[in-house]
Amino acid sequence: MSERLDAQIGFILELDRAKQVLRQNTLADASRRENDAEHMWHLAVIALVLREYADAQVDIARVVEMLLVHDVVEIDAGDTFAYDDAGHLDKEERERVAAERIFGLLPDDQARWIWELWLEFEAKATPEARFAASVDRLQPLLLNAASGGQAWKRHGVTADRVRARNAHIADGAPALWERAQLVIERAVAEGILQE
Amino acid sequence: MSERLDAQIGFILELDRAKQVLRQNTLADASRRENDAEHMWHLAVIALVLREYADAQVDIARVVEMLLVHDVVEIDAGDTFAYDDAGHLDKEERERVAAERIFGLLPDDQARWIWELWLEFEAKATPEARFAASVDRLQPLLLNAASGGQAWKRHGVTADRVRARNAHIADGAPALWERAQLVIERAVAEGILQE
Repeated sequence: MSERLDAQIGFILELDRAKQVLRQNTLADASRRENDAEHMWHLAVIALVLREYADAQVDIARVVEMLLVHDVVEIDAGDTFAYDDAGHLDKEERERVAAERIFGLLPDDQARWIWELWLEFEAKATPEARFAASVDRLQPLLLNAASGGQAWKRHGVTADRVRARNAHIADGAPALWERAQLVIERAVAEGILQE
Repeated sequence: MSERLDAQIGFILELDRAKQVLRQNTLADASRRENDAEHMWHLAVIALVLREYADAQVDIARVVEMLLVHDVVEIDAGDTFAYDDAGHLDKEERERVAAERIFGLLPDDQARWIWELWLEFEAKATPEARFAASVDRLQPLLLNAASGGQAWKRHGVTADRVRARNAHIADGAPALWERAQLVIERAVAEGILQE
C-alpha cells in the first residue's frame, strides 16, 4: 500500500503544474491570463450550477470528474488556443503522449480510470461529455465578454468564428447556446468583438 | 427562465474572484502563492484519487461538491491562515456574512443547496465532511513540504503546531495521517520545519 500511495502522491504533486499552464483568455476583470487549474475548477462548479440545462439526463458526478481532469494533459502538451488551426493539427498526438506520461504516474487501475474519463471527454459521444464540452466553451465566452474581449482582440478573432466554434454548445445544452448567442451579439454591439 | 439564468451567470462571474484570493502556502515549486480556485480544484482531484483511504464509506460525489465550494466565502472574508489564532476568532461571523451575499446571488433553491454543502463541510459531522477536511489539510502539508517549507518559515510555524493541526487528518482518513506524519518527520529531518 505504501508504494501505491507513493505513486498517488507523485501524481498529486505533478498536478500542481497545471496551475502554471496559461490559457489565452483572461480573468473576468482582465487583470491577467487564466490558468488550467483555475479553469478546471470554474468549469466543475459551472456544471453543477447549470446542470438543469443539459440536453439529456446526465450523470452530473461523471461530468464533474471529466471536467476536473480534462486539461491535465496540457501540463506537457500546452494549451492550444481554440482558434489556432495550425496548433490543432498535431494536438491529438501531443496530448496522447502527455496522457501516457502523466496518467502513467498513477497505479494501473487509476491510470485506466483517468484515461477513460479523458477519452470520453474527447470523443463527445455521451450526453455527459457533450454537456461537459458545452460548459468548456461557455466559460471562456463569458470571461472574454466580461473582460472586454481581451483574447478576441489580441488574436483578431471575429464574430463569425466565435459563432461557428460555440454553436457546439447546443449539442449538450441548447438553452445555453441561446444565451451564448445573446452574449456574442451584445459583444458585437459593444464593439469588443468585430464582425 | 431567463431571470433564473441571469442569476446563475451572475454567480458564475462572481466565482471568478476566487482566483484572486491568495492562500499562505505556495505552489510546490515555491514560485508564488497558491490561490483559492487552484486549491479547490486540486482538493477535488485529490479526493477522487485518494478516495480509497476514506475512513468510512463516503459518497465521493458529495465530497467533491463540498470541496469545490468550501472556500468560496473567502471571496469576501479572505483566507484565514491555519495558524492565525486571532484571525480565527471572528472567522465564523465574517464567513457567514460572505455566504449570505455570495450564495444569495443564486436562485433560492440553489442558494440552499450550496449553503447546505458549506454548512456540512464546516460542521465535520458526516463521513463526507470529515474526509473532505482530511484532504483540505493534507494538500497544503504536501505543498509546504515540497516547497521547502516556505509558509512555515515565513510564519515561524513549528513542528508541534503542524502535528496538532494535522492530526485531524486521522478523523477522515487514518492511513493519510500515517503518511502525513512521515512527511512532517522528513521535513524536520531536512531542517525545513523547526521543532
